[in-house]
Amino acid sequence: MEKFSVKELYQDYLKLENKEITIEGWIKNLRDSKTFGFIELNDGTFFKNIQIVISDKLNNFKEVAKLSIYSTIKATGTLVVTENAKQPFEIQATNVEILSECDRDYPLQNKRHTMEYLRTIAHLRPRANTFQAVFRIRSVAAFAIHEYFQKNGYVYAHTPIITCADCEGSAEMFKLTTMDLKKELPKTKDGETDFSNDLFGKETYITGSGQLHGETFASAFGKIYTFGPTLRSENSNTKTHANEFWMIEPEISFCDLDELMDIEEDCLKFIVKRVLEQCSEEIEFCDKFIEKGLKEKLAKLLDSEFVRIDHKEAIDILKKADRKWEFEPDYEEDLAKEHEKYITEYFNGPVFVKNWPKDIKSYYMKLNEDGKTVAAVDLEVPGSGEIMGGSQREDDYDKLLERIKEKNMDASQIQWYLDLRRFGSNVHSGFGLGFERLLMYITGIENIRDVIPFPRTPKNCDF
Amino acid sequence: MEKFSVKELYQDYLKLENKEITIEGWIKNLRDSKTFGFIELNDGTFFKNIQIVISDKLNNFKEVAKLSIYSTIKATGTLVVTENAKQPFEIQATNVEILSECDRDYPLQNKRHTMEYLRTIAHLRPRANTFQAVFRIRSVAAFAIHEYFQKNGYVYAHTPIITCADCEGSAEMFKLTTMDLKKELPKTKDGETDFSNDLFGKETYITGSGQLHGETFASAFGKIYTFGPTLRSENSNTKTHANEFWMIEPEISFCDLDELMDIEEDCLKFIVKRVLEQCSEEIEFCDKFIEKGLKEKLAKLLDSEFVRIDHKEAIDILKKADRKWEFEPDYEEDLAKEHEKYITEYFNGPVFVKNWPKDIKSYYMKLNEDGKTVAAVDLEVPGSGEIMGGSQREDDYDKLLERIKEKNMDASQIQWYLDLRRFGSNVHSGFGLGFERLLMYITGIENIRDVIPFPRTPKNCDF
Repeated sequence: MEKFSVKELYQDYLKLENKEITIEGWIKNLRDSKTFGFIELNDGTFFKNIQIVISDKLNNFKEVAKLSIYSTIKATGTLVVTENAKQPFEIQATNVEILSECDRDYPLQNKRHTMEYLRTIAHLRPRANTFQAVFRIRSVAAFAIHEYFQKNGYVYAHTPIITCADCEGSAEMFKLTTMDLKKELPKTKDGETDFSNDLFGKETYITGSGQLHGETFASAFGKIYTFGPTLRSENSNTKTHANEFWMIEPEISFCDLDELMDIEEDCLKFIVKRVLEQCSEEIEFCDKFIEKGLKEKLAKLLDSEFVRIDHKEAIDILKKADRKWEFEPDYEEDLAKEHEKYITEYFNGPVFVKNWPKDIKSYYMKLNEDGKTVAAVDLEVPGSGEIMGGSQREDDYDKLLERIKEKNMDASQIQWYLDLRRFGSNVHSGFGLGFERLLMYITGIENIRDVIPFPRTPKNCDF
Repeated sequence: MEKFSVKELYQDYLKLENKEITIEGWIKNLRDSKTFGFIELNDGTFFKNIQIVISDKLNNFKEVAKLSIYSTIKATGTLVVTENAKQPFEIQATNVEILSECDRDYPLQNKRHTMEYLRTIAHLRPRANTFQAVFRIRSVAAFAIHEYFQKNGYVYAHTPIITCADCEGSAEMFKLTTMDLKKELPKTKDGETDFSNDLFGKETYITGSGQLHGETFASAFGKIYTFGPTLRSENSNTKTHANEFWMIEPEISFCDLDELMDIEEDCLKFIVKRVLEQCSEEIEFCDKFIEKGLKEKLAKLLDSEFVRIDHKEAIDILKKADRKWEFEPDYEEDLAKEHEKYITEYFNGPVFVKNWPKDIKSYYMKLNEDGKTVAAVDLEVPGSGEIMGGSQREDDYDKLLERIKEKNMDASQIQWYLDLRRFGSNVHSGFGLGFERLLMYITGIENIRDVIPFPRTPKNCDF
């Protein structure tokens, strides 16, 4: 008997009409009367269940009919197309083998649970409908990102997580060590901590970004991207912060800020398009139960042409607005959440805000000719605010060094990064896309903890 | 003037014959006489350079002809097809704009450098031919892995790196902390280290595997894979060990050891096939300069049907061999490198060695009915030895708990993992594929440090 997955059955049920098939999976639901019953079965390969009809013709009908949710079975039967029923086909079982019975104290019964409760059973919640939708979208979106960059000739660069450079000051970084922290740390004769027997022989940190290493690869392969986990030690307990998340950081040689915005727009639309095509059931579910109007929001994104304005123009618009602000708009300051919201509503679509005051942006961003702003750009989208942040990179050795000194950073730690401006310098740009923020935008999920399989946040590191 | 990439020109040069095109890139080589010269240019998008012909008709001919290697230019000119020349086409420049001059002390001049030297300029070595080949193959192979699993209905699961579970004993794990290790660690009133103000409020580690978390996802999505960086703190200075590497860990529900081997074989062949198709220039280079016979080795892999033998049979064969061993083959022991080599030579191809003595394998592997062996399998390939390691997982709650206790592990730390055997248990299997070991096999590179962009090994954490 040929074994099929739920996905294969949904794809090919017309071809399989009246054929005998076998399927293994988990019981998602079971309704029975004395002589027959209906099992909703799933093997995790597709968002929808299949219906298995059982009857007392089965020699183990009573045992099967008593099975609890999430028991596993192997069912063989005839595929019958049921055109006018809720489901397009069903399996009329001729044999059901019980593989395992699920304990009765299964903590994920078929009822509505709160998101908070589901976080306490993070090992089981991927089985709940919401997380079946969210984590499949996560997988499809991740692959769409790889597809986008690979098809466009980018090289996937695996930049390191472990670093010894603490040029920005290590206070805020995660430290990594093989020393036993339950004991006294070893000391040098001067009374300092002795790192010489630590694995790398010196103090070691976790990087919060692959950009600098990414630029070295862009200076060899032209167009590259990174996509990997990022660990940041911020002590922020908000709905949008996690201490472990995934990030995409493309870097493109011979590319200025305008070309960068073209790429960002193209990339975001590609990802959203792929998810809409490949996760229609999941998006339907999210639209119904998570964010009403989600599908329309995403469809509208695909049709819109993203507006491009300077930071200064954004502040002009905010200042002219006939309303009170919690944070007064300021030409020298960042945009607050309320500002981002207003700007995307004002333009009724995604907006690139570019050319920011240099003092509130990073040292590696290209100083504009005005000497006051840098060629940075944030993409703001309706409903979620900033979703991508990028910039043209400073490609002039002396200017970059000056900026590093202005920020009181230790240039010697990143001489290799400065070197890229001596050896093959070129106009180049890159951006960062926080994968979880993107997923929150695409699924409508409001808390970052619910788009990450096992979220890590301050004081929370379970499982 | 339309801007093209080197890759686009190689793809479309016949269509572009006699058209005027523009290209930006790095000078890889430059030969000149008084009145004309040849520039080999590349923008990183393709393994081969393109030839730009310059002559004294350019108003800045003298400046251009003097440019050093890895200076950047923007060249415009006519594409001329040159059928009988070494390169299929060239660009006859009508205008060359100098974008940046590379400093004369550029440490990567066009001559043969040792691999050891190149590691000291890890930020520049991706520009060298060897690393152009290796890191593009790395990117293509990584995407092939995603393609393989996505096309076959697997969900990509992002398992966490940060963990608080130390059930196997934390001595050997990396610790992660936000405490200042340069100062005395805070103490509780009992004199123990006080982790309560550490970010997660308790001692935190880095996991060495995503398998356990992966299994939770397999119990929801049926087929899943992970693909991410793995940090291990082993103090091993060998050619095959690094402290940061990438790993792929698929987990498949309703899948036994035989089906697992089918998947492993299919997956490996898919990756190799994709690399051969998409990196023919790079593989050609590796075959010529890194491992003679590489292409043949890979082609042979695609054609072979992998042998499957029990560990016991492997030992039988080794014991019958008419030769001396450094390590005597033993029914209760692991295979040494020399044994792996002999076995793959004996069968003249890849060999699955399965059903290993339980005491030398992990607790989570399925105990066979003999009570002595576990359903584990290692794939040995000619030239590289073990490349994949997998097993059917113990799906019986009580047997798994017993094995955990036998290994003196703390079961309470992974109750959530045990739970999978109470709630929806099923025959399931998975394997691990070390991405760098695979790359060493595919490229012929002998040291793991040379297939990783910025390798981290004991006492080595530069850049």
